[in-house]
Amino acid sequence: MSASGDVIRATYLITAPAGEAAAAARRIAYEQTVELPEALVTDAAILEGVVGRVEDVTPCAGHDERHLATIAYPCAAFDAQFPALLNLVFGNASLLAGTRLVDVDLPAAVLSQFQGPNHGATGLRALLGVHGRALLATALKPRGRDARELAALAGAFARGGGDIVKDDQNLADDFETFKRRALRCRDAVADANAASGRNCLYLPHASARYDDLERCFEFAAASGIPGLLVCPMIVGLETLRTLAARYPLVVMAHPALTSVAGGTAARGLAPPLLWGTLFRLAGADIAIFPHPGGRFPFTADDGAATAAALRAPLGELAAALPAPAGGMTLERVPELCATYGVDAVHLVGGALFGLDNDIAVATRRFLDAIRAASDERLVPPQPLPAPARGYHLAAGADFNWAGRESSPYKHAEDAAFRGVRRVELVGRFGEPTRTDLRYFEVEPGGYSSFEQHVHGHIVIAGRGRGVLVQGGERRALEVNDVAFIAPLEAHQLRNESDQPFGFFCIVDRRRDRPLPAG
Amino acid sequence: MSASGDVIRATYLITAPAGEAAAAARRIAYEQTVELPEALVTDAAILEGVVGRVEDVTPCAGHDERHLATIAYPCAAFDAQFPALLNLVFGNASLLAGTRLVDVDLPAAVLSQFQGPNHGATGLRALLGVHGRALLATALKPRGRDARELAALAGAFARGGGDIVKDDQNLADDFETFKRRALRCRDAVADANAASGRNCLYLPHASARYDDLERCFEFAAASGIPGLLVCPMIVGLETLRTLAARYPLVVMAHPALTSVAGGTAARGLAPPLLWGTLFRLAGADIAIFPHPGGRFPFTADDGAATAAALRAPLGELAAALPAPAGGMTLERVPELCATYGVDAVHLVGGALFGLDNDIAVATRRFLDAIRAASDERLVPPQPLPAPARGYHLAAGADFNWAGRESSPYKHAEDAAFRGVRRVELVGRFGEPTRTDLRYFEVEPGGYSSFEQHVHGHIVIAGRGRGVLVQGGERRALEVNDVAFIAPLEAHQLRNESDQPFGFFCIVDRRRDRPLPAG
Repeated sequence: MSASGDVIRATYLITAPAGEAAAAARRIAYEQTVELPEALVTDAAILEGVVGRVEDVTPCAGHDERHLATIAYPCAAFDAQFPALLNLVFGNASLLAGTRLVDVDLPAAVLSQFQGPNHGATGLRALLGVHGRALLATALKPRGRDARELAALAGAFARGGGDIVKDDQNLADDFETFKRRALRCRDAVADANAASGRNCLYLPHASARYDDLERCFEFAAASGIPGLLVCPMIVGLETLRTLAARYPLVVMAHPALTSVAGGTAARGLAPPLLWGTLFRLAGADIAIFPHPGGRFPFTADDGAATAAALRAPLGELAAALPAPAGGMTLERVPELCATYGVDAVHLVGGALFGLDNDIAVATRRFLDAIRAASDERLVPPQPLPAPARGYHLAAGADFNWAGRESSPYKHAEDAAFRGVRRVELVGRFGEPTRTDLRYFEVEPGGYSSFEQHVHGHIVIAGRGRGVLVQGGERRALEVNDVAFIAPLEAHQLRNESDQPFGFFCIVDRRRDRPLPAG
Repeated sequence: MSASGDVIRATYLITAPAGEAAAAARRIAYEQTVELPEALVTDAAILEGVVGRVEDVTPCAGHDERHLATIAYPCAAFDAQFPALLNLVFGNASLLAGTRLVDVDLPAAVLSQFQGPNHGATGLRALLGVHGRALLATALKPRGRDARELAALAGAFARGGGDIVKDDQNLADDFETFKRRALRCRDAVADANAASGRNCLYLPHASARYDDLERCFEFAAASGIPGLLVCPMIVGLETLRTLAARYPLVVMAHPALTSVAGGTAARGLAPPLLWGTLFRLAGADIAIFPHPGGRFPFTADDGAATAAALRAPLGELAAALPAPAGGMTLERVPELCATYGVDAVHLVGGALFGLDNDIAVATRRFLDAIRAASDERLVPPQPLPAPARGYHLAAGADFNWAGRESSPYKHAEDAAFRGVRRVELVGRFGEPTRTDLRYFEVEPGGYSSFEQHVHGHIVIAGRGRGVLVQGGERRALEVNDVAFIAPLEAHQLRNESDQPFGFFCIVDRRRDRPLPAG
């Protein structure tokens, strides 16, 4: 089937009397696409190309009122990215009675929009150098301990041979506090690693304020911290997807604020879909979820299905690791090993702290229990990617910088300009900046496009004399003059002199395309 | 009580046998703060200053197994912002059996972190010039119609006298498509407004990709679009809070992907808390929710309580407007007017499109029904805030710009520098940029702090000759040389010449504080 004929298949568990399930499925198909009564949708192109199609409604054996309904949504009519996808498969349906979303099947064209886990099960094992057994993780807690005490805990866990130590999700503070705590814990774990030759991974918690969240990722990538703990339902699945794709970190996803299971099977997102497939699409290398029999009320089926969803084939996406948690004990290690196998992370909190006052000793006891059920093989850990380095560009003769090429101003189809060369200086060479710096030079008699765009920009005149047309006014630009172009302000830069006119231009890295002005 | 003694009070509905409710409440108090078994928490400062305190557990009359439990969390121990607050009151508790969060009482010190609705009920009435009656809103749909058709619908609704027309939440596309559709609809509504003298508000849908979302807000603010429709559970409550506080727009919040009610009263966030209090904290001027009796299964109590939460006193936050929706009809207008009063928005979709082929006629019929139940008073609408304007700063003699002052480099406590002046050029004067441009000038023999920070920055040498110490190397800087300082790279700028050395410095607007290096 061609990509344009691809569909997104969503499977809903519909709780309704047998005679009403098909009609309920049809209502979902309309609700999620056109959100109009059937009688008002008469346009053939919309009926065929937009409205969801109910492919199947099958009763569940043993449950008179439960049915699995599969609805196919035409991909071509919908944006393939996360926010629109979530709206399409469950936006309004999340509010409907007797409607639970249990599975989503995405075609390759949609899956290709998702990068998924940066490391995945295989990559994590390479970073750790640990094969053949389940991994052991813990959480730094409780809140109220200072950074020094938490760092000591982290170091003891690493000395005991633990694999992954994360912050508790209640360790959420302003960015400066986060930075100080994370650096201390990083150093404590690094000291232990240096002594052991192993590579215990420290993952601080980054479900931070919007303005600090990307900075947490940037900070980890720059400071030799291998990854982060993130709560996708607090920061948003799409937010995590974007940041995980941008920074090569390990992402451990925490199920806080999930509220999905609803106490019944009749509503909400099925846990394996959320903690398995959706967290993995968002970039989770490891997904934490409550293992049955701990202090959270989930079933053995939920746990098995979540682990299966994290490992199942999913386009080109790497498999992620399940991290059953929420009341693990030493006695349950054999059961966990039997249930989840080696490709899992045992996340142990209180039971580790309660086992022995020396956390290194307690960690060893848990690891010994895991080793007893498996066949551990240790290899040298793979180093983390090196952080980005800065650089210096010497200005050569005639405003040509060493290591940077001049290129034409724009592609030929944007022809409303004349005699402009551009030099991309900073931002297009893998640097972790949110800003691009470019230099433009306009020949005598030349001009840039008269245009407008939503991103503002800043201009610093660098060579010769020019004219800035801005908001309907003409302003002379001399060297070192500065201008700010506001969002959607129509503007143009012109050279009406007989010498080259050059200027530096500072814009956001991610910006919209200009519209012609005037 | 002093601010440091303030508590955040959360009320949970606990479904458990009568003899177990108190213990369940105590488990929540530990789970949400220290996430450890009671026996492991022995530090007096943590027991008193961090662990939640169960203040009350009261059975609900008529329900043997339901209890309302109030837990007080000490503010001083927790970050007062949205992500940490959500984790504190419901992060893990959302996963517990028989645990529903029904109310949160925030002290003034926490509420002061929230700006809430930009316009609120009063501000919306000023923008509209409509008093004494409920407002009428509709949604542009279905997906599959092109921008021209949707704009025609919007214009017809405005000509009919409608108050607010929003995009359907399925209208979610890449940013360029969004921009084109929104400008067309804006223009159609503006034409109708110009003819009528009224101010129908058009709100495009902005639950966009992470990288485009802030741009949607910036675009609306710059283009005379009064506000946006946003799905808080898709973009994240904290994301919406930040962007709503940053741009003076009308925010209409949509309940897509809510999944909160769980089909029983035993789990999840209570709808009035989510759609009322939390959406309002996130900046919603208007909160859409399913009115009972439509196609979504919510109770009359849910509707009344949601409306009450939107209007209740909440620190200094403006009251927001409830927008009951989801199956409204002309026949139900009197009931809606009686239930919600004048301070409400009737959101009508399919019933409006089904009433008359001429949407202007259908709109008038709905408005007439609303007017029949109220006492409409129209006044001239208040204009929208003017968009930001650009500007030009002429470079004066000796690198002093017109309209910009030089100031000392840093406060006196950061004393590891010498002979540096700074000029804030762009970014500190209300401009909607994500970048600040500054000029620094170092006297002969002077130097900046040797420091590191997570935000990278870009340097353009502007005057004289300097030395950049970067990553352990010394590099000469001549005029127009460019340097990129990577995150956490230790760096310093020095003037070892006998003339002033000046450079432009480009940094993110929101950045972390430097740490001393070396």
